Amino acid sequence: MKFLAHINVMPKAELLDPQGKVVVKNLPNIGIEGVDDVRIGKHVTISLEAKDESEAHDKVENACKKLLANVIMESYDFVVEEV
Amino acid sequence: MKFLAHINVMPKAELLDPQGKVVVKNLPNIGIEGVDDVRIGKHVTISLEAKDESEAHDKVENACKKLLANVIMESYDFVVEEV
Repeated sequence: MKFLAHINVMPKAELLDPQGKVVVKNLPNIGIEGVDDVRIGKHVTISLEAKDESEAHDKVENACKKLLANVIMESYDFVVEEV
Repeated sequence: MKFLAHINVMPKAELLDPQGKVVVKNLPNIGIEGVDDVRIGKHVTISLEAKDESEAHDKVENACKKLLANVIMESYDFVVEEV
């Protein structure tokens, strides 16, 4: 069976997000007011084969833990859909 | 009113995604088989004030077009929720 995973990897809430701070500071320069916080992370899509949804879920969880996310500084969440 | 936008900025489908290719090549090394494509982009959350949802939507659209996405090489999509 074929699956598509949609993953978000974000800096943990308690950590400073320097990239986000730069964006917050620059948005008024392009006429966008009223923004009080911006956080920037990774969006990853994975297209994969698995015998069922549970195996697909485990593979994606493993990919996140071992490769895509630095679990000390980042948190991740994902959804898996059959395609 | 307060809103939270969830934005994905991804490399356009027709473009090569070198980061994604590196991940595809390395996943078998950590025991994850069956992955045929990985695409890596940005996930951005924006917390903002706006008089209504339509204004919030326009502000986020503007932020994507002018700052967050390189519209030649990237595509973006987002949802805005009241919080």
